Amino acid sequence: MKKVINNPEHVVEEMLEGIVYAHPEYIKKLENANVLVRRNSPVEGKVALVSGGGSGHEPAHGGFVGKGMLDAAVAGSIFTSPTPDQVYEAIKAVATDSGVLLIVKNYTGDVMNFEMAKEMAEMDGIKVDHVVVDDDVAVENSTWTIGRRGIAGTVFVHKIAGAKAESGSSLEEVKDVALKVIANVRSMGMALSPCTVPAAGKPNFTLGEKEMEIGMGIHGEPGTHREDLKSGDEIVEHLLNKVLDDMDLKNDEVAVMVNGLGSTPLMELYIANRKVHSMLKEKGIKVYKTFVGEYMTSIEMAGFSISLLKLDEELKSLLDAPADTPGFKII
Amino acid sequence: MKKVINNPEHVVEEMLEGIVYAHPEYIKKLENANVLVRRNSPVEGKVALVSGGGSGHEPAHGGFVGKGMLDAAVAGSIFTSPTPDQVYEAIKAVATDSGVLLIVKNYTGDVMNFEMAKEMAEMDGIKVDHVVVDDDVAVENSTWTIGRRGIAGTVFVHKIAGAKAESGSSLEEVKDVALKVIANVRSMGMALSPCTVPAAGKPNFTLGEKEMEIGMGIHGEPGTHREDLKSGDEIVEHLLNKVLDDMDLKNDEVAVMVNGLGSTPLMELYIANRKVHSMLKEKGIKVYKTFVGEYMTSIEMAGFSISLLKLDEELKSLLDAPADTPGFKII
Repeated sequence: MKKVINNPEHVVEEMLEGIVYAHPEYIKKLENANVLVRRNSPVEGKVALVSGGGSGHEPAHGGFVGKGMLDAAVAGSIFTSPTPDQVYEAIKAVATDSGVLLIVKNYTGDVMNFEMAKEMAEMDGIKVDHVVVDDDVAVENSTWTIGRRGIAGTVFVHKIAGAKAESGSSLEEVKDVALKVIANVRSMGMALSPCTVPAAGKPNFTLGEKEMEIGMGIHGEPGTHREDLKSGDEIVEHLLNKVLDDMDLKNDEVAVMVNGLGSTPLMELYIANRKVHSMLKEKGIKVYKTFVGEYMTSIEMAGFSISLLKLDEELKSLLDAPADTPGFKII
Repeated sequence: MKKVINNPEHVVEEMLEGIVYAHPEYIKKLENANVLVRRNSPVEGKVALVSGGGSGHEPAHGGFVGKGMLDAAVAGSIFTSPTPDQVYEAIKAVATDSGVLLIVKNYTGDVMNFEMAKEMAEMDGIKVDHVVVDDDVAVENSTWTIGRRGIAGTVFVHKIAGAKAESGSSLEEVKDVALKVIANVRSMGMALSPCTVPAAGKPNFTLGEKEMEIGMGIHGEPGTHREDLKSGDEIVEHLLNKVLDDMDLKNDEVAVMVNGLGSTPLMELYIANRKVHSMLKEKGIKVYKTFVGEYMTSIEMAGFSISLLKLDEELKSLLDAPADTPGFKII
């Protein structure tokens, strides 16, 4: 294992310290929990958004804390759901009279622990609701999931529900638009290499020298199949067709996210994006906005995912609204 | 070689197409050259900034084209200087009556080709000047360099000279502030792994399973030495002390950049940033602003560099000025 780390048991704590050192104008860390919150939280008069999950997906989720996106991000151990009490601390730290919306990726542990935290907060009289993101079309059930997994499409939920919350909308309205994004976003990924959880010290799966895995999860969960590496265009064609098969697009407008999983250079992501755009153009689907970069990673996994979000006028305007966070800025 | 590419000979062209598809609101590509320019260029009344170099360092330099930074970025083949005629096309496309400043990283080929392009443009009556960035303190001369190499500190030159140009300053003033940044920025990097130029198909150097290279260049040029992998804190201590030894800092304020080289996850960069901040604090050096992420990469090399920029009031205010580019945003 070759990593720029110290004690493998301390990576999350040291990373959180490093994030706060880097971005004190955006975030602070709670003293009693691995939770990053907006520097000026609670933001009174606004629904608070709380997300999080296992660490190892940076910039998700701590990098999306700031104006126009999240109020708090809970950082579990690497690839491990945060405990209910950590989520509960996050909720308490950012809760306002307008209420709190939890945005949870669909993993059994995450869903259970966020729901328990919700109940704990409700006993304190805090108004809390939650949504579960399940955008990955690859497999129906998986190692840590009943139902589809939540992956990079979650970032669109953060962005759009964040903009809705920032506009002063009610908890119900913010939840409704989050559900609208969830209903309209689909993703699928592929891997060229595994990644290594520091405390484990060895890769979480193995791939042959010329092999790739299609549809694996962001924790290395098995995908649909393995095959010999193909050209970038052929890989994009397969992933994008799977995504499109699960959507009902006809002369629609979409947002595109080509998301790097950790060690795939921007060069390759842009080459993939080229094929995404040319395929969509051929099918008469208009791209409204494109995001290429690392948004939801798997430590240093090589590979990428493609997400499409079907847009209407409301989603377009919320996607365009300003966001100012360390990992995602819309000017 | 496991990469998401098609024909290795076409990676630069396909990448540029993918960048333009992703960011049409910022940039366009010249028809006759591998040059990305601001969408609304030439921006009359403003000194135009032109940079570039070999490809493989994305988001540098095309990702920094936009308001408050570059007017044009010339993309050579991977790790290969762009030809003089490509640079000349870039200059012609963005030149205004206020003149053009070329920002060149110190590699023999780049310096020669940018200087030749400058002469070609001058024969057309275009006012052109240039600066050469040599921020890497690791080695005095290197494979492709006489003198020190230009690496991630170049991004501070783009940002600050870009802000100065945006303010309507003269070519001489923009050049002066670029030279001030160059005089006050120092960097050094390390690698955990090599990278593979697609057309070569094999890694550009080899490292043992527990070995790291200290002070290598962003094209894999040899550094100061190799040694067994140490802890993140020890690595940062070595790099940062080398950088500090070459600066004259006493109760000064600095900007910090912890730059990932391609496949080092944000997690590790933040852990490194933690140590950078704690060391600077101990030494009484105040951090004004921190940048952690991928700014000047080496395809998929694992490793990172640390850059420090000594600030005065002018540099602080120019660093804070708005920038709106695909790869670098200041709100």
